[in-house]
Amino acid sequence: MRIGFFPGTFDPVTLGHIDIVQRALPLFDKLYIGIGVNANKQPMFTAEQRRAWFGSIFHHEPKVEALVYEGLTVDCCKRVGANYILRGIRYVSDFEYEKAIADMNRSIDAGIETIFLTCLPQYTSVASTLVRDVLRYGGDISQFVPDEVLRSVREASAS
Amino acid sequence: MRIGFFPGTFDPVTLGHIDIVQRALPLFDKLYIGIGVNANKQPMFTAEQRRAWFGSIFHHEPKVEALVYEGLTVDCCKRVGANYILRGIRYVSDFEYEKAIADMNRSIDAGIETIFLTCLPQYTSVASTLVRDVLRYGGDISQFVPDEVLRSVREASAS
Amino acid sequence: MRIGFFPGTFDPVTLGHIDIVQRALPLFDKLYIGIGVNANKQPMFTAEQRRAWFGSIFHHEPKVEALVYEGLTVDCCKRVGANYILRGIRYVSDFEYEKAIADMNRSIDAGIETIFLTCLPQYTSVASTLVRDVLRYGGDISQFVPDEVLRSVREASAS
Amino acid sequence: MRIGFFPGTFDPVTLGHIDIVQRALPLFDKLYIGIGVNANKQPMFTAEQRRAWFGSIFHHEPKVEALVYEGLTVDCCKRVGANYILRGIRYVSDFEYEKAIADMNRSIDAGIETIFLTCLPQYTSVASTLVRDVLRYGGDISQFVPDEVLRSVREASAS
Amino acid sequence: MRIGFFPGTFDPVTLGHIDIVQRALPLFDKLYIGIGVNANKQPMFTAEQRRAWFGSIFHHEPKVEALVYEGLTVDCCKRVGANYILRGIRYVSDFEYEKAIADMNRSIDAGIETIFLTCLPQYTSVASTLVRDVLRYGGDISQFVPDEVLRSVREASAS
Amino acid sequence: MRIGFFPGTFDPVTLGHIDIVQRALPLFDKLYIGIGVNANKQPMFTAEQRRAWFGSIFHHEPKVEALVYEGLTVDCCKRVGANYILRGIRYVSDFEYEKAIADMNRSIDAGIETIFLTCLPQYTSVASTLVRDVLRYGGDISQFVPDEVLRSVREASAS
Repeated sequence: MRIGFFPGTFDPVTLGHIDIVQRALPLFDKLYIGIGVNANKQPMFTAEQRRAWFGSIFHHEPKVEALVYEGLTVDCCKRVGANYILRGIRYVSDFEYEKAIADMNRSIDAGIETIFLTCLPQYTSVASTLVRDVLRYGGDISQFVPDEVLRSVREASAS
Repeated sequence: MRIGFFPGTFDPVTLGHIDIVQRALPLFDKLYIGIGVNANKQPMFTAEQRRAWFGSIFHHEPKVEALVYEGLTVDCCKRVGANYILRGIRYVSDFEYEKAIADMNRSIDAGIETIFLTCLPQYTSVASTLVRDVLRYGGDISQFVPDEVLRSVREASAS
Repeated sequence: MRIGFFPGTFDPVTLGHIDIVQRALPLFDKLYIGIGVNANKQPMFTAEQRRAWFGSIFHHEPKVEALVYEGLTVDCCKRVGANYILRGIRYVSDFEYEKAIADMNRSIDAGIETIFLTCLPQYTSVASTLVRDVLRYGGDISQFVPDEVLRSVREASAS
Repeated sequence: MRIGFFPGTFDPVTLGHIDIVQRALPLFDKLYIGIGVNANKQPMFTAEQRRAWFGSIFHHEPKVEALVYEGLTVDCCKRVGANYILRGIRYVSDFEYEKAIADMNRSIDAGIETIFLTCLPQYTSVASTLVRDVLRYGGDISQFVPDEVLRSVREASAS
Repeated sequence: MRIGFFPGTFDPVTLGHIDIVQRALPLFDKLYIGIGVNANKQPMFTAEQRRAWFGSIFHHEPKVEALVYEGLTVDCCKRVGANYILRGIRYVSDFEYEKAIADMNRSIDAGIETIFLTCLPQYTSVASTLVRDVLRYGGDISQFVPDEVLRSVREASAS
Repeated sequence: MRIGFFPGTFDPVTLGHIDIVQRALPLFDKLYIGIGVNANKQPMFTAEQRRAWFGSIFHHEPKVEALVYEGLTVDCCKRVGANYILRGIRYVSDFEYEKAIADMNRSIDAGIETIFLTCLPQYTSVASTLVRDVLRYGGDISQFVPDEVLRSVREASAS
């Protein structure tokens, strides 16, 4: 069984994230999406909201399951039985930091390997942090996020 | 009409910023300097102070006009009619992030193009964040900033 | 008069090159495309062929003119009266080398400034060198180059 | 069936290559090692020699099969039925170029995905090109290559 | 007299730091380790604790002396008579920032030169910030830090 | 005794090289400049010419000695008793490759450490390869090289 774990903040989920999941899916028998929560950082969207987005986007894809976790990524991998960590690489400068984390995770648990995918060029510049900036100032994010996120944002601003 | 918009924090203005403005000026019929304010970040110098520096440095250059703005850079470009965003690139690692922002801005408004200039090598290492560090500990910043900034700093510490 | 000079090898012209020219055109009153020849390097396509491609692609755009040159880029700029060198930046690692060349060109002739543009994300990975590899082994390059190049390639392989 | 294809020059095979193969192996049902030959480049070791090394190193691992190929990597993938290209990333600057190639390969054949692994830190600096330099001047390469390569080199210098 | 100054946060000291000190030591007649404190950042370990670690690790090495400082690194260098700043470079992206700081320090005091060393590959990924993450969630850091740090951590969690 | 070895091609010597030597000199009791020759590469200037330049530039500095070598840098270090390799880092992308070479050299001979310096910002863009390009097309290189090199070039073109 090849079980993958795709950790991230997903605040919010972008088309780039969806692209990575879809492209990685054939590699795995099961792919967990790990929504990391960090007591020191205040997200824009609740963890439950982010989990719900993945649930609705991949509701006909039984191999995908999103969960919320706190703590070390390798510990969560062990809990769900994942032997691969999946990361999408956007920037060159990201890669270096990702490699350091992959090296440390491998040191902590030699049985967990990190594999990297690159997303489609048109999604390369779609970072959640930039999407939040656009959203904060009332800009249009419809090119960057899936319909599920758009709908939540519209409902929130209507209420 | 070629109207440029040079967004930044300019906290404080450095000789590197002045160099970029002077070098870009012939390209434009009008160049707005956009001093971005961010409700979550406490600057060292007030936005009004930063605007005043540019006003006095470029007082005989009618093509240059500094303004304070909050919100999306592309929105401010539209308000003033700018069709070009100007960015000075210092570090290679900056470039990647700047490219992502330029891509997103182009997605939001296809009529706004970002152009990049590099500053003179001697100013490449003069980052506002490093200048603030030197200033905070009473170091000498006269090689890094224009006279207008030096004067303000001296007046502030004299009072 | 703002006169630009866009130097390159263009062996062959790609959609990325066309994108840069079109995006930079409003900035200039005239834009020369400088096809550099280097006695030590054997190109895949003749300089005349490459010049002809630009001629036919931009035949209704009087501001664009392609020429073949050998020698220093700054010398050719002076001959045609260009005061700006235009470069499209694809990779982060390119940027660093481009900056070094821009610094040297500015040292040799302070009146010539280099400005950088980034191309659309979907063209970022379309490097001429990769296109030549695909072509050499009979792969399909129709997604990467303009019709004019495609036609030449087909005629050449038909003859 | 998940079939991987690991293209490279392997001139010579290093411990870094072996590390990547071993770490990637559980992901695939079959992993082809594609030894690329290029008519314009003279290798230090023959393609047959390089193929033989992999054959002997992985002789008890039926999932691994090395083959020699010329032409586009995606064409060779199609011939052997591989749907994944595997690349080990050593340097940050490599990554950018690898990403461009992965993007082009995906454009040419949307069914072929490239996945990246990083090798163990101690092998990160072991590049074939540096190994060849050491070898050319009679230096000791025993820390960098598998025994099979060492033996070939010793036999060659003994004869 | 060649007097070096190795500034850092060392929160906590890692095997990578120890490696840099040991490798740099023969270059200097005296090497100060400067533990920087920053009023705005709350460290995980007290400055005194960090100073004590170095004291016990290098207690039989009279050339090494750790001290706590606040303010500009060049000012502290002058106070202790150091003419060299020592930095260990881990990531490529670090290097660029380090170069900017070295340039500014040289501008402020031309008599202080910065020299860079790289640490052993196996320590390259061991960043204090990652070690703190592992520690915060109860992970095992024994591969990344010296015994002195391990002991403190165990005593702290036992009490 | 701290003996340094500064390897390079120096084809030609630039102001950047001189800057690195002068800045590194106080660190060493003796500094060898190793002019590497490579049977496969045809230099613009003879090895003897390059050695003579250093001889005349540093004729009143007995600690500096230039020599011509072929083969592995670590072997030449051992021959002259050097325990430090000195490298000047210009570009971020250089750094990564330099680190790989430093790691390999340390693996081959653990007693030889590589230390890196950065040159003055104004010399950062002065690469020998760019200087050769300017020279080849009759451009003015007086801002980039020491007088000794200028004189040789003028004599050569006068004869």
